[in-house]
Amino acid sequence: MDFTSDNAAGAAPEILEAVARANSGTAASYGADAVTARLVRRLSEVFERDVAVFPVVTGTAANALALATLTPPHGAVMCHELAHVHVDECGAPEMFSGGAKLVPLSGSAAKIDPAALAAALASLPAGIVHHVQPAVLTVTQSTELGAVYTSEELGALVDVARGRGLRVHMDGARFANALVALGCSPAEATWKAGVDIMSFGATKNGALAAEAVIVFDPELVRDLAFRRKRAGHLLSKMRFLSAQLEAYIEDGLWLRLAAHANEMAIRLGAGLSAVPDAALHFEPQANELFVRLPNTTIARLKAGGARFHPWPMPGDDAQARTVRLVTSFQSQPSEIDAFLVLAAG
Amino acid sequence: MDFTSDNAAGAAPEILEAVARANSGTAASYGADAVTARLVRRLSEVFERDVAVFPVVTGTAANALALATLTPPHGAVMCHELAHVHVDECGAPEMFSGGAKLVPLSGSAAKIDPAALAAALASLPAGIVHHVQPAVLTVTQSTELGAVYTSEELGALVDVARGRGLRVHMDGARFANALVALGCSPAEATWKAGVDIMSFGATKNGALAAEAVIVFDPELVRDLAFRRKRAGHLLSKMRFLSAQLEAYIEDGLWLRLAAHANEMAIRLGAGLSAVPDAALHFEPQANELFVRLPNTTIARLKAGGARFHPWPMPGDDAQARTVRLVTSFQSQPSEIDAFLVLAAG
Amino acid sequence: MDFTSDNAAGAAPEILEAVARANSGTAASYGADAVTARLVRRLSEVFERDVAVFPVVTGTAANALALATLTPPHGAVMCHELAHVHVDECGAPEMFSGGAKLVPLSGSAAKIDPAALAAALASLPAGIVHHVQPAVLTVTQSTELGAVYTSEELGALVDVARGRGLRVHMDGARFANALVALGCSPAEATWKAGVDIMSFGATKNGALAAEAVIVFDPELVRDLAFRRKRAGHLLSKMRFLSAQLEAYIEDGLWLRLAAHANEMAIRLGAGLSAVPDAALHFEPQANELFVRLPNTTIARLKAGGARFHPWPMPGDDAQARTVRLVTSFQSQPSEIDAFLVLAAG
Amino acid sequence: MDFTSDNAAGAAPEILEAVARANSGTAASYGADAVTARLVRRLSEVFERDVAVFPVVTGTAANALALATLTPPHGAVMCHELAHVHVDECGAPEMFSGGAKLVPLSGSAAKIDPAALAAALASLPAGIVHHVQPAVLTVTQSTELGAVYTSEELGALVDVARGRGLRVHMDGARFANALVALGCSPAEATWKAGVDIMSFGATKNGALAAEAVIVFDPELVRDLAFRRKRAGHLLSKMRFLSAQLEAYIEDGLWLRLAAHANEMAIRLGAGLSAVPDAALHFEPQANELFVRLPNTTIARLKAGGARFHPWPMPGDDAQARTVRLVTSFQSQPSEIDAFLVLAAG
Repeated sequence: MDFTSDNAAGAAPEILEAVARANSGTAASYGADAVTARLVRRLSEVFERDVAVFPVVTGTAANALALATLTPPHGAVMCHELAHVHVDECGAPEMFSGGAKLVPLSGSAAKIDPAALAAALASLPAGIVHHVQPAVLTVTQSTELGAVYTSEELGALVDVARGRGLRVHMDGARFANALVALGCSPAEATWKAGVDIMSFGATKNGALAAEAVIVFDPELVRDLAFRRKRAGHLLSKMRFLSAQLEAYIEDGLWLRLAAHANEMAIRLGAGLSAVPDAALHFEPQANELFVRLPNTTIARLKAGGARFHPWPMPGDDAQARTVRLVTSFQSQPSEIDAFLVLAAG
Repeated sequence: MDFTSDNAAGAAPEILEAVARANSGTAASYGADAVTARLVRRLSEVFERDVAVFPVVTGTAANALALATLTPPHGAVMCHELAHVHVDECGAPEMFSGGAKLVPLSGSAAKIDPAALAAALASLPAGIVHHVQPAVLTVTQSTELGAVYTSEELGALVDVARGRGLRVHMDGARFANALVALGCSPAEATWKAGVDIMSFGATKNGALAAEAVIVFDPELVRDLAFRRKRAGHLLSKMRFLSAQLEAYIEDGLWLRLAAHANEMAIRLGAGLSAVPDAALHFEPQANELFVRLPNTTIARLKAGGARFHPWPMPGDDAQARTVRLVTSFQSQPSEIDAFLVLAAG
Repeated sequence: MDFTSDNAAGAAPEILEAVARANSGTAASYGADAVTARLVRRLSEVFERDVAVFPVVTGTAANALALATLTPPHGAVMCHELAHVHVDECGAPEMFSGGAKLVPLSGSAAKIDPAALAAALASLPAGIVHHVQPAVLTVTQSTELGAVYTSEELGALVDVARGRGLRVHMDGARFANALVALGCSPAEATWKAGVDIMSFGATKNGALAAEAVIVFDPELVRDLAFRRKRAGHLLSKMRFLSAQLEAYIEDGLWLRLAAHANEMAIRLGAGLSAVPDAALHFEPQANELFVRLPNTTIARLKAGGARFHPWPMPGDDAQARTVRLVTSFQSQPSEIDAFLVLAAG
Repeated sequence: MDFTSDNAAGAAPEILEAVARANSGTAASYGADAVTARLVRRLSEVFERDVAVFPVVTGTAANALALATLTPPHGAVMCHELAHVHVDECGAPEMFSGGAKLVPLSGSAAKIDPAALAAALASLPAGIVHHVQPAVLTVTQSTELGAVYTSEELGALVDVARGRGLRVHMDGARFANALVALGCSPAEATWKAGVDIMSFGATKNGALAAEAVIVFDPELVRDLAFRRKRAGHLLSKMRFLSAQLEAYIEDGLWLRLAAHANEMAIRLGAGLSAVPDAALHFEPQANELFVRLPNTTIARLKAGGARFHPWPMPGDDAQARTVRLVTSFQSQPSEIDAFLVLAAG
């Protein structure tokens, strides 16, 4: 009953096996190997267009590299106030970009409100040297609160961003979970919707440590190659990283793993809806739930062996607090059910 | 017959197995797992003192993080003019340090000449705001030309550095190879010799992608923890990285692998000494050879399937060029011998 | 009737004369001259303790240098959401600090609310590597909305900051105006209240281009000296800059100039209070007024030759907008009165 | 007899008067004033084309801003090993560029040897991510050793640079002195010779503190405007800075001042040529001399009140050392002659 995070999960067997399989003889280093070449072709198929792919080992690296490619040091990155890049990366985007400013925006369920974006853009007029210049919009799909932008919601944001000439980045640490929830194609969810560059996450969904910056705009590629190396994120034995990503997308593994995680979240959410004192903040869409529970329930769950993190939210009080529950590709129905039994008291 | 680099080699089976073994259930993320805790204890035993350990996935990351911890932005990093940090990391130390300056120094076999260090320090007087301030000496062990600093050589450099108040970093991308050549203990080769912090390499010697910043001075630890996260180098599923390093040092695996690589280099060097037109630049000490060969010999080797990189050196001319030959834990005696047969013509 | 900004004013004659007087023979460069030495002694007298003084030519430079000295790159600078450092310096603190994050806080009249500070600090727990680490509190005195922190208000903020180990910076671009309003000594307003370092502004109050970073904590001095040079802010002919600052504080010139500016603002405020449709946001304390005026009044004032900037504030609507009116040491009572006549319609 | 530096000199009366004259009424701030507009027109006339002008207060700021505009963080700045940007600016170019690397090149009289430039470029191949990428060539005119690049010498360097796609920057801290020596037009000496951007110095030649980044390539302008503000180098009361520069170029003042300084250096050089034990390193071309003198002569000069800096050069020994002698617009023939009398012993 470990619902602390999907990064507490291990690795999918298919991915571990791919790593072992990649260990055959010598190979050209720094990405000039055959596995990496295949990966780029496969991702181009998955995204229905030629893409450039920069595998890295953390989402923070993917995000910071992508954002730094899109903004000058005097630029502004428009993000949700709960965005991982703003809150949980210890200033990585600032470091990689040479000191760009992240502008936190409001919006429910960690989805940026288009009006908030428009207002913030208006407060940073173009060409006025006293103010940082908005350069990029970053959206997290699925969001830090487990919600999924609909196509319309994303389109509305992109429209505002494009109206000011901003580039668009998607933090897809849980992109597979979002895609399963949306039921659309990877292309529709990204470049067809106006995304220029994305952080394509695999670690939280079964890889050992594998993310990729996927670039839809070829102009961005050259700069990114140097930035990755300079940040210490170009692996010499790249084949072992590319092999994880190749296995991840092979035969739809990534979507199967994510679908399972989402189903477990839905099962958990449905169960919690029936618990009298449990208050779900949102209907679960991907693989995260945020639920306010009485302290007594929390204590009972902990005593019963359940693991999860507190997640303070407005409305919490001395009697009841919000906790975050994250399911993963490894979550078992039996764990869900055991948790629900404990929650019901 | 792939002698291009030790990073063209694959992974040692023991290390791959350790990664698979680490894949059991959920684990606390970001290094709070049991494998990482064991690794720190084991490395403390190996180095005969408490050490702090920051596993990362590239040598560039390890070096840049370590150097950035030791120098202010207005500082200078004293290094050999052929040092990897200066030549081959696309400015990573500059990025991580906020723009410190690397001061390239001369010295044979890529070993810094203490007189060159002293002269450079004298040219950057302390406290004069017009000049960057020397803050750290970095030495590569074994060096970029495959040589190994003796204890006396390292001591002489450290003495000069300490006389000016510099901290000392060791780039140990091939530390195991150096240690085998030196025949001393890890402690003697590092902190007992005055090293404050090191980049402890495993990737080139059998890991998938595993290096560690090892810190001998506890004062440096806190800053480094934030720097690693901020650079996107803190892995969420750390256990898979720590497992590589743990297996690497378990039962002396690292030294056995390095001893083999070194033996292969010595075998190759001995064979080439007997080839009339081959001119070794240095006696091989670790696992790299630099040898000047006639163009005809180079062509014959290539035609025979041997792979290696050119490595221009002073003295090369239109008829003969220097090439670099790197052996690894995977190099086979049969490959060496086949190469020698081709070289002999 | 130019109320656009106090930096639209010219230079005080005493300051221009001091610059001319400093032009005598040759002088040691980069601050080793006699004028600069005198300035340090005089400022030490003014502040009733030994201070270190770093003259620079802009407030942005003073602020960014001071903040960069107080925060590591992974640090956070706690500031008001309207603070000049956050809004109007195009990311200078981010550049100088290597990418620290500015955390905007709410509070009326551009004064930070201690509860907002405490809440923000709580959201960035100490030692957690995922989050930037609060390192410094910066307060603007007088504030961007022309208000002045009382001794109690400043004390309350400093207490919260000290409780978390933060250093304290004061942006004193209009420090003289605040001091006149407070009626306390420079020492009481700064280091005796817990300020470690300040930006001491003179440009807006009669200098050509002269500010100084004044350091109350001697530990910060060494780093700052290198940072100033490295940022291109160490003037070779320093005497001409120091001479401005020396004349500024000579015989209380700075306080006389500020007192005049404040009086003009009070006169303007009193007059506007009597204008039916004018709504002052705050009682003027220093030399800035923020007043909501009907569009017709604004148009009449502009037509009459008055100059000022719009300053959108909550509550503005299609009929009436807020404007900012800034008085300076050069403002004339006749200008005030002419403005009031126009405003009265 | 102060020959320490031309920045030990004061300000030309015409420039001081222009500053005083600019102090009339209020003026738009941040460069939107009439003086600055006139300055841009006048400099466009002087350079025989439209130029963009960014006045700043130090040469370090001008250089660092210009270089940062021309190089990405992973770029390399090719410079002479004695270049001010490399040796005397405490890493300002590294700070402003986000960590670009300065590549020091050899060449006599502090003029870059085109072969050294070509060799360095060859060692940093284009598109290889391991190496920083050459982005800009910077030349100092006149050089740090008082020499002047001829049109042919500059052309040869520019050809090599252009062959690799580099942009060209000129550090013109002593541009007027070089121009007088060359006898060509400002246009011929800069953009017609391939210079994209320059640091146009006035401080060493009679201003209080005034330099300008002059931009010949309009593409560079927008980025530079933000960089200047962000670095704290945009003055609010810009008119006082622009007035210095306007007076500097008015009626050829700058060239008259420089011609005088050069003549004084020639007079000094001619006199020293006749002193038995004095060895000039180069014929003086601009306003700096480097001469090796016996210690006894140095002592006699110092005792007689002469001031100058030691300047260690190859060939110095225990008996004789090189000193630098800098003349300025204020140097008097009588000072030169008095110095020569002392030198002759």
